[in-house]
Amino acid sequence: MNTFSIINKKIIFRLLGYLLILESFFLLVSYIVSIIYKDDTGAAFLISFAITFVTGGSAVFFTRKSKKDFGKREGYIIVSIVWIICSLFGSLPYIINGSIPNFTNAFFETMSGFTTTGASILNNIEELPHSILFWRSLTQWMGGMGIIVLSLAILPFLGMGGVQLFSAEVPGLTPDKMHPRVKETAQRLWIIYVGFTAAETLLLWIGDMNFFDSINHAFTTMATGGYSTKQTSIAFYTSPYIQYVIILFMFIAGVNFSLPYFALKFQFKKVFRNEELKTYTLITIAFTLVIALKLFITGNGSLEQSFRDAMFQVVSILTTTGYVTADYLLWTPLLIALIFTLMFIGGSSGSTGGGVKVIRVLLILKNCFYELKRLVHPKAIIPMRLNGKTVPQPLVNNVLAFIVFYLLIFMISSVFMASLGLDMESAMGSVATTLGNIGPGLGSVGPAENFSHIPSIGKWVLSFLMLLGRLELFTVLILFAPSFWKK
Amino acid sequence: MNTFSIINKKIIFRLLGYLLILESFFLLVSYIVSIIYKDDTGAAFLISFAITFVTGGSAVFFTRKSKKDFGKREGYIIVSIVWIICSLFGSLPYIINGSIPNFTNAFFETMSGFTTTGASILNNIEELPHSILFWRSLTQWMGGMGIIVLSLAILPFLGMGGVQLFSAEVPGLTPDKMHPRVKETAQRLWIIYVGFTAAETLLLWIGDMNFFDSINHAFTTMATGGYSTKQTSIAFYTSPYIQYVIILFMFIAGVNFSLPYFALKFQFKKVFRNEELKTYTLITIAFTLVIALKLFITGNGSLEQSFRDAMFQVVSILTTTGYVTADYLLWTPLLIALIFTLMFIGGSSGSTGGGVKVIRVLLILKNCFYELKRLVHPKAIIPMRLNGKTVPQPLVNNVLAFIVFYLLIFMISSVFMASLGLDMESAMGSVATTLGNIGPGLGSVGPAENFSHIPSIGKWVLSFLMLLGRLELFTVLILFAPSFWKK
Repeated sequence: MNTFSIINKKIIFRLLGYLLILESFFLLVSYIVSIIYKDDTGAAFLISFAITFVTGGSAVFFTRKSKKDFGKREGYIIVSIVWIICSLFGSLPYIINGSIPNFTNAFFETMSGFTTTGASILNNIEELPHSILFWRSLTQWMGGMGIIVLSLAILPFLGMGGVQLFSAEVPGLTPDKMHPRVKETAQRLWIIYVGFTAAETLLLWIGDMNFFDSINHAFTTMATGGYSTKQTSIAFYTSPYIQYVIILFMFIAGVNFSLPYFALKFQFKKVFRNEELKTYTLITIAFTLVIALKLFITGNGSLEQSFRDAMFQVVSILTTTGYVTADYLLWTPLLIALIFTLMFIGGSSGSTGGGVKVIRVLLILKNCFYELKRLVHPKAIIPMRLNGKTVPQPLVNNVLAFIVFYLLIFMISSVFMASLGLDMESAMGSVATTLGNIGPGLGSVGPAENFSHIPSIGKWVLSFLMLLGRLELFTVLILFAPSFWKK
Repeated sequence: MNTFSIINKKIIFRLLGYLLILESFFLLVSYIVSIIYKDDTGAAFLISFAITFVTGGSAVFFTRKSKKDFGKREGYIIVSIVWIICSLFGSLPYIINGSIPNFTNAFFETMSGFTTTGASILNNIEELPHSILFWRSLTQWMGGMGIIVLSLAILPFLGMGGVQLFSAEVPGLTPDKMHPRVKETAQRLWIIYVGFTAAETLLLWIGDMNFFDSINHAFTTMATGGYSTKQTSIAFYTSPYIQYVIILFMFIAGVNFSLPYFALKFQFKKVFRNEELKTYTLITIAFTLVIALKLFITGNGSLEQSFRDAMFQVVSILTTTGYVTADYLLWTPLLIALIFTLMFIGGSSGSTGGGVKVIRVLLILKNCFYELKRLVHPKAIIPMRLNGKTVPQPLVNNVLAFIVFYLLIFMISSVFMASLGLDMESAMGSVATTLGNIGPGLGSVGPAENFSHIPSIGKWVLSFLMLLGRLELFTVLILFAPSFWKK
């Protein structure tokens, strides 16, 4: 039986309408930035605002009699569509203003923004008006906000947040009763998000960075987005102070956002016994040390410089931010391989980071070693434990299916990108970096390059990969399952 | 508590002794070949025979009072050690004769033989004496025999053969009662193996190939080994007939050996409903068609030539044989990516092929799609089905752990090979091809190259990877589990 008819389409339109109205206000903020910096882009933002506001307003107005019925099916559909709709309207300023006249490019840049990926088709960033750069950073900041709510409040409600819930319980939030607390939870998480953004802006401003660049970089750090207002990214700023501040905040942005929440409530025990945080820290330290040592030996500069270069790139790629202070493609093959490995790990669950996520990597590694134990004692039942609790078998299975899907999508998409004429390294790099919401890849899409030379069809595929990765695969893939559309 | 003391070491020595005596007889056969072709290598084989026979004989003699107690622990230890011991003694002729004077190289070549990998350090194959070439092919043929018994009789007894047992029941064989039937099963399987080898020899001989080359290629085809008596591998033979014969037998060698057994008993239903066989055939056809088409379009030659080149390379890599008729590294990046993908699939379970194995790939892909179904119906219990039977959850978990270990070992080893100075493609290619027991890799270890330029330490690591891959990972890894050594 087909259930398309029983899906509450009106409520979907209504919610999308509300979100478009929200987006239109951010367009208005960019209009104000345009006025302040007198960069002649005001008209483009006013028109974009008007189109977005009127479309959103109409959707809300014409669905005012809709039923309030809102189930999981509607949830999945909205979550997948909202990123596409917001990217469509979000690309308006680029097109109207002429900064990115090509529609495919404008959509790619905006989707890369909202999914906090940071892959760019631009090669003239510093020539762009302030307000356009501000909007570009803002798409990432909004996307980051969206992701926190999505991963800590909405996905668990849809039955997909097993991993997140397990790694750090969100106060008062269980999959079955989201409604009463979702607003409160979201508010608390956003306060933390805004707080960190403000703190980073201030710390950068105190350094040598001007206020405009400070706020932009704070936006895209906290979102683990990686859009910079400079063509050469953070390499533009040679100040070690600025680089260390950014390393610190990238690292924070890659932590589960319920942990700072607990920390602010002085519940440090919950923070320190968190196995995901331990693993995340360990990965950061281990990769930094190996790379720093190798860089120092191969004559990259002083020990401090090698350490800073290593740590910056490790934290940037691991958290899927994608800022650059050194072109890692100029490093030795070993180091490139390590960076490529990091691309598959990603940030912590419940952070703005993408990728497979530390908790999943931790779970499957644990499962491997538990499997060896099980082979030694084939008749014993040996359940896996995490954070002191038993991990239910269906959750393990879900994580393993996730990783297989992730690698499968990576392989098929790499083959497809290779079929467009990209060499193997660029094909694999472009897929790994978009699916993981990172930014820079390998080969011709490396940190010193951009995505403008990718054929149009390739840009659409990569845009779709950003969405897939951002929504933890299943949220999108489930829409393609025939059983989803059956009663 | 340490159980090292309660392990029946004597029975281990005794069995290894018997296997060395068996190996020594094959060395004697090579001696006879040396006499027939008057290639002055007789002495090397006689000495090797003597050393091997006396060592094996002594081990058997001095352990004649050992207890017959033989448990799983002893089984795991023997299975892992026997490949190393046989490779050590098997490298004697190369060293004594001076064909491969370097010990590391000789061990690499022999381990590559016994594990039916086919990766070679030789670049002067046609200059070598007949008997040395014969011994080289024979190591693969023996290895193939060993693998069939291992995967269809011994691993199930050790509790590792869940996958094999599931994909095609071996007549009268259950994990709990191996002893009475293992000999009978082994005999039946070997008759099939010998029969196919004889048939291929005959068919090649009927073609333009001389008898010596025919029997050598039949040995290494049926073992999915891939050692050739020609430096340019099968590309030496331009006859389409010869190439098609080899394609046919490579394909057969990649099928579960209990299926020909059923076919010979006219139980075709069991063959045709086998899902692994269907998937294996489908993969072969799909990859062949895509590659053939692309080759034809890019001007590789006639349609037949493109089809043959595509099918030969696809079957050779998928079955992990590793013969070459065309240097796939000269193809477009898309096709190289496809070949690289094939390296991770491998042959069927219970065949002489290596890699992850078709059944495991099939199982994890099925699991992904079942997981989507489970997400749509979170409260329903949806078990996976294969060949019409329900797949138990622990088996799924085992397969997933296997694949994660496989990829993990692939990644860590690739990073290690890169640290030796190999470029990323060569590092990944050398690891994928040895872990999968294939032969040729990518980059500097591609089909037109060999492994001689790899640093010594790299050769030892790759040799270990061949062993790991050949023994389905867990058989070796379990020895590193602390719980294995506890009571």
